[in-house]
Amino acid sequence: MAYRAGRHFLQIPGPTNVPDRILRAMDMPTIDHRGPKFQEMAKRVLSGLRTIFRTEQPVIIFPASGTGAWEAALVNTLSPGDLVLMYETGHFATLWRRLAERLGLRTEFIAGDWRTGADAAAIAERLKSDAGHEIKAVCVVHNETSTGCVTDVAAVRRAIDEASHPALLMADTISSLASIDYRHDEWGVDVTVAGSQKGLMLPPGLSFNAVSPKALDAAKSARLTKSYWAWEEMLAPNRNGFFPYTPATNLLYGLAESIDMLNAEGLNNVFARHSRHGEATRRAVRAWGLEILCRKESDYSGSLTAVLMPDGQSADAFRKVVLGSFDMSLGSGLGKLADKVFRIGHLGDFNDLSLAGTLAGVEMGLHRAGVLHKAGGVQAAMEYLANEAGSAEGREAAE
Amino acid sequence: MAYRAGRHFLQIPGPTNVPDRILRAMDMPTIDHRGPKFQEMAKRVLSGLRTIFRTEQPVIIFPASGTGAWEAALVNTLSPGDLVLMYETGHFATLWRRLAERLGLRTEFIAGDWRTGADAAAIAERLKSDAGHEIKAVCVVHNETSTGCVTDVAAVRRAIDEASHPALLMADTISSLASIDYRHDEWGVDVTVAGSQKGLMLPPGLSFNAVSPKALDAAKSARLTKSYWAWEEMLAPNRNGFFPYTPATNLLYGLAESIDMLNAEGLNNVFARHSRHGEATRRAVRAWGLEILCRKESDYSGSLTAVLMPDGQSADAFRKVVLGSFDMSLGSGLGKLADKVFRIGHLGDFNDLSLAGTLAGVEMGLHRAGVLHKAGGVQAAMEYLANEAGSAEGREAAE
Amino acid sequence: MAYRAGRHFLQIPGPTNVPDRILRAMDMPTIDHRGPKFQEMAKRVLSGLRTIFRTEQPVIIFPASGTGAWEAALVNTLSPGDLVLMYETGHFATLWRRLAERLGLRTEFIAGDWRTGADAAAIAERLKSDAGHEIKAVCVVHNETSTGCVTDVAAVRRAIDEASHPALLMADTISSLASIDYRHDEWGVDVTVAGSQKGLMLPPGLSFNAVSPKALDAAKSARLTKSYWAWEEMLAPNRNGFFPYTPATNLLYGLAESIDMLNAEGLNNVFARHSRHGEATRRAVRAWGLEILCRKESDYSGSLTAVLMPDGQSADAFRKVVLGSFDMSLGSGLGKLADKVFRIGHLGDFNDLSLAGTLAGVEMGLHRAGVLHKAGGVQAAMEYLANEAGSAEGREAAE
Amino acid sequence: MAYRAGRHFLQIPGPTNVPDRILRAMDMPTIDHRGPKFQEMAKRVLSGLRTIFRTEQPVIIFPASGTGAWEAALVNTLSPGDLVLMYETGHFATLWRRLAERLGLRTEFIAGDWRTGADAAAIAERLKSDAGHEIKAVCVVHNETSTGCVTDVAAVRRAIDEASHPALLMADTISSLASIDYRHDEWGVDVTVAGSQKGLMLPPGLSFNAVSPKALDAAKSARLTKSYWAWEEMLAPNRNGFFPYTPATNLLYGLAESIDMLNAEGLNNVFARHSRHGEATRRAVRAWGLEILCRKESDYSGSLTAVLMPDGQSADAFRKVVLGSFDMSLGSGLGKLADKVFRIGHLGDFNDLSLAGTLAGVEMGLHRAGVLHKAGGVQAAMEYLANEAGSAEGREAAE
Repeated sequence: MAYRAGRHFLQIPGPTNVPDRILRAMDMPTIDHRGPKFQEMAKRVLSGLRTIFRTEQPVIIFPASGTGAWEAALVNTLSPGDLVLMYETGHFATLWRRLAERLGLRTEFIAGDWRTGADAAAIAERLKSDAGHEIKAVCVVHNETSTGCVTDVAAVRRAIDEASHPALLMADTISSLASIDYRHDEWGVDVTVAGSQKGLMLPPGLSFNAVSPKALDAAKSARLTKSYWAWEEMLAPNRNGFFPYTPATNLLYGLAESIDMLNAEGLNNVFARHSRHGEATRRAVRAWGLEILCRKESDYSGSLTAVLMPDGQSADAFRKVVLGSFDMSLGSGLGKLADKVFRIGHLGDFNDLSLAGTLAGVEMGLHRAGVLHKAGGVQAAMEYLANEAGSAEGREAAE
Repeated sequence: MAYRAGRHFLQIPGPTNVPDRILRAMDMPTIDHRGPKFQEMAKRVLSGLRTIFRTEQPVIIFPASGTGAWEAALVNTLSPGDLVLMYETGHFATLWRRLAERLGLRTEFIAGDWRTGADAAAIAERLKSDAGHEIKAVCVVHNETSTGCVTDVAAVRRAIDEASHPALLMADTISSLASIDYRHDEWGVDVTVAGSQKGLMLPPGLSFNAVSPKALDAAKSARLTKSYWAWEEMLAPNRNGFFPYTPATNLLYGLAESIDMLNAEGLNNVFARHSRHGEATRRAVRAWGLEILCRKESDYSGSLTAVLMPDGQSADAFRKVVLGSFDMSLGSGLGKLADKVFRIGHLGDFNDLSLAGTLAGVEMGLHRAGVLHKAGGVQAAMEYLANEAGSAEGREAAE
Repeated sequence: MAYRAGRHFLQIPGPTNVPDRILRAMDMPTIDHRGPKFQEMAKRVLSGLRTIFRTEQPVIIFPASGTGAWEAALVNTLSPGDLVLMYETGHFATLWRRLAERLGLRTEFIAGDWRTGADAAAIAERLKSDAGHEIKAVCVVHNETSTGCVTDVAAVRRAIDEASHPALLMADTISSLASIDYRHDEWGVDVTVAGSQKGLMLPPGLSFNAVSPKALDAAKSARLTKSYWAWEEMLAPNRNGFFPYTPATNLLYGLAESIDMLNAEGLNNVFARHSRHGEATRRAVRAWGLEILCRKESDYSGSLTAVLMPDGQSADAFRKVVLGSFDMSLGSGLGKLADKVFRIGHLGDFNDLSLAGTLAGVEMGLHRAGVLHKAGGVQAAMEYLANEAGSAEGREAAE
Repeated sequence: MAYRAGRHFLQIPGPTNVPDRILRAMDMPTIDHRGPKFQEMAKRVLSGLRTIFRTEQPVIIFPASGTGAWEAALVNTLSPGDLVLMYETGHFATLWRRLAERLGLRTEFIAGDWRTGADAAAIAERLKSDAGHEIKAVCVVHNETSTGCVTDVAAVRRAIDEASHPALLMADTISSLASIDYRHDEWGVDVTVAGSQKGLMLPPGLSFNAVSPKALDAAKSARLTKSYWAWEEMLAPNRNGFFPYTPATNLLYGLAESIDMLNAEGLNNVFARHSRHGEATRRAVRAWGLEILCRKESDYSGSLTAVLMPDGQSADAFRKVVLGSFDMSLGSGLGKLADKVFRIGHLGDFNDLSLAGTLAGVEMGLHRAGVLHKAGGVQAAMEYLANEAGSAEGREAAE
């Protein structure tokens, strides 16, 4: 390929731009995963992770992609033929459902139009009708990466409670953890699924299950087969800083650094930063005269913004122009949204000027690709950013 | 912990010392795993891997530890209740068996004393008695990492053929691939299991299944549940340089570099180097008056040497002295060998002087720990190394 | 300091953003600077450097900042009391003059207003009046980093030739080499001075003298004292790939990578890219209603743009706001321009979206700092960039 | 060149093996050398350096090799024609003298046979005879890198004091700083010369002058020309964390890390470690039946050991065999010792097992090269190392 000067803009909604500190932390000799130095590091990571998931419970780390953590959540808690209630928020909810079925679970899918988060009221209603408690788990995607719509997980919890239903609550936070406010304990989630390559700012290769006591209890009688994903094998050695099989040591180095960085910034500042960039991005989209895929303001995502192409125009052709002309990767439309939307990732290690560059790449790309739009999106975003101080600035001014 | 000057000696039999070139290759920005640059890199890796496994068949890459690849080998090819013939070469053979049983397979274990590789004749005998072909797979560990004994996989192939038995042949090469001569195609192996963190000189986090047409055929009717590990999901996108879920991009960067380095050295030179270091190590062990765990010369390993402690002495206490005094990690005894042996890893990115330093650490550690032994092990190794030119030297002299 | 998410924008006119490839190339073990591997690398670097300076003559590398290369140019060619003709293009021309005087040279400074490059006609005139050839050297700054004004070095050469004057021609290309078209041989420059930390995209720590046969001849009789800077000590060992004293090995690794990258992009493409970014920047400045320091279109710089603040407003206060609010470093006004201008560096490893982010930081900073200006600078730059394809794109389209 | 597996052994007496922590610290984006982050880092470095030189006085940092710091020491304190008393300890003392003469100084060289440090009594005698105080400076090399002989700098100080002579005392600690006990203030040194690439464990590219008030006073009237090396230009901005010209930012990152590492180990532990490795090396040399170049026990060096080849055998041929067969670089004989000695560097980031590997490389190399010697050198070193606990171990046991 032709040589490209300057830094590539990786603005897919994950993997995200890995900060130098994390890449450098991983760029160190692998150590003995059964020795005292590893033990010390692993204890620090396992304990630090809890601050990110906002839990006092164990967080289990798999050397695997996020897809593995989806599987782990199900095989540890359920038995063949169990019924799982899922919500069709978009492509990833659909994939999770497909995975559940491959594992021998029965699924029920509350239909959605891929333009909102999950509707807690619909979930409540369905649960209330399940007098026999056939439904064993409710699975929602916190931030649907294919649409940029957020589900109110606390409301889902309340829905389950209102129905006095014993189902487990599982939430996929793959593209929301460490980007959008999330509280495993406070919201009563039983299994939280997450991955390394989004808000945690790491390369892909680690995924997570945060588990509640109720989930651990369910694990005792769950009969789906499992070995690699078995929580019970993990929990005992983890208490001591060890793992039942070889862990992905160098990714753990990066994770230790990530946790330090997120806590240095402060999780609430991290959320505010993402939220601010989401708002700036949406202002740009509106200025261009394009339509934001997410239909509900309450469901807007701080991690990514999916944008509908004008009728009859190819999102993929547009993305190709942006990549070729401006060396920026944007997210494609997935599943039934293929070629109809493009997605702007604004999550991870990111700041105002990189966002401005990103939006400039979109605006110039629209022009280059001949997509009908109005100029002024970057301008609109800048007006917002220039007037609304970010959290880091506030703190600096105060110091 | 106290500050330690100089470089730690990581002489466990894996993870091995990761070369700077590989660490640096991984220390690069993560890219879009759905874009053309990734595609180009992945195609190069998927094709290059075949040269390392010596196969024309696909090699599947999982973002997972080696344990995952064990699981993948079984769930893709077998059905609940299938009988698998395994051979008790040591701790890892035992773990693989345990894993098979967790997955709902039946296993039969040919007993071994953990001091040799698998006996092909015993396998042949058992297969011949299986007139009904109840056995669906034969699983052996090529280089048993817990003992340093190598199994003659080609002989196992011949045993199966002699018995005209249709069972699949699966081989674990986790600690032999790219260290000890191995030929997936020529030896007729159906599934080869491997990992990144040994001969491939990468950090842990990737594992592999090389698969034969027969294995792919078996996969069509195999009924164990699978999703993350499903070959069929991998093969189609792989053909195009893509993956069905987010791959461990940065580890793949390292893998590309590893393949280049191994081919630059030449696989046969790699094997000769390991073999030479194994011989030097065994000469040291004998000079110390200690016993090599592996009882058969033909089964000696080029990757590691397990050494029996004199009666009544703790291998773990000795290893702790070596770590504390000389900043070297040695492998512990595993399973029933716990505290009875220590293991010297001499695989991966390694050379004569690092081996001399390693053996010096063992010899000085034996002295410090008060283990009965004779001096002169390093001297014996040096005499061998000084007189037997390594392969790199030969080539250099020839150039 | 407060934690800042995302990547810092280093938009001073050097040091520039060092590409990952170069940082990683330098992040390798130091080797024996008297051994064959070093020799091979050094020969490659010494030969590759000539392609960058566009010369067939030797390029001497000092482990030193650019200031050292200024000194080297003078002490190798001149004798105490020699008269040097310099041109007051700005702060760096002034510093170079001061350095010459410290070394015991006499200097004559053609006055300038710091808003243009050197006037070749004025130089010609002065040389013509120097019938006795008292002037031994003419020194000009190719791209005056303090002002963003370029001197036409070829015209200075013609001026010297027209006057049939034997003076040496020395050019400082510290902020132009590998950014703005420069031709050591074709333009008849006797000593070219350069540094590592601008267009070469390296950290600071190396500097250069490209020398003509005439300069080497002058060196034979030059009587200024010198040791570290002595060319004669360098040239003989350099021929063989060695250095008279310990070279900055790891910076040389980076330089090897830099030369490869520049040649992969193609020097003419590099120049076109910088020129395009200069034009986009100036369009932004004009849209803001601010004044470009450089008064002559012909002298505009592709490396940086210096911008005059509106009367009565502090450039430094503005730069502080930009740093605090948007994590971007801009160049300060130097010497008599202190606090009156800010400088936008757009050189080195840089692309359209980073430029858009940079200009967004300036525009939002002007707003935040309450500097009188019009919005629309980024918009103006984007219009230009969107309509004018960059050189990399052209090539890609053609492939 | 042929591919070499494993890590190269860089056992020249500098540049030394750069620790990963330092390489990684340097592998970070260059920052604005006029901004607050740089200022903070530079202040930390400038202050931390004093702990390494054991001084309360300023330490000046040059972006230059050690040779530059030699020049800086002289040009800042002396005037043309001044007489300098130097001591012929070896090749580097000879080069320093040559440099002094190039600068227009007169030198007087107390002859030595290159097998001891400087004789303080001879210096005292010469100074006593200099009733007119014509001698302006006494220059000694603390650890002569070409011979491995240490000069007792405190004794030289006493010699000057006994003679009541006003001469400045200058000491070259290029290969001793942070390896061999050195005390700028306590020993009354006026200018200490040092470099980055030895005990400081950095790549080459930085050098240092630690200066006494008396040296600063001398600088006021010194008339040698200087610009790049001028202390006065450095001291004022340094006080504030800045530099008069672009500093070698990324090497400073490494220096900050180096200071932290040395202080974490504890300077006295660092010295004890080097001393222990020197003793182990000498025991090996004696066991081989070879002769240590340094004739006086009191002058033995902890940084390196120079070894005389048996009569009629080429040290360079031997070193070539070691490099070709065992991938280890040893130091060559310099000046009149060319081809007669080889030098083993045992300084910097180094530990017992790396020393054992190093000595094994020498012993096997002697065998391969057909050099007459006895086996058993490594064995002798190991006996010493195994019985004498290193300082890190002592501390660990105590913790």
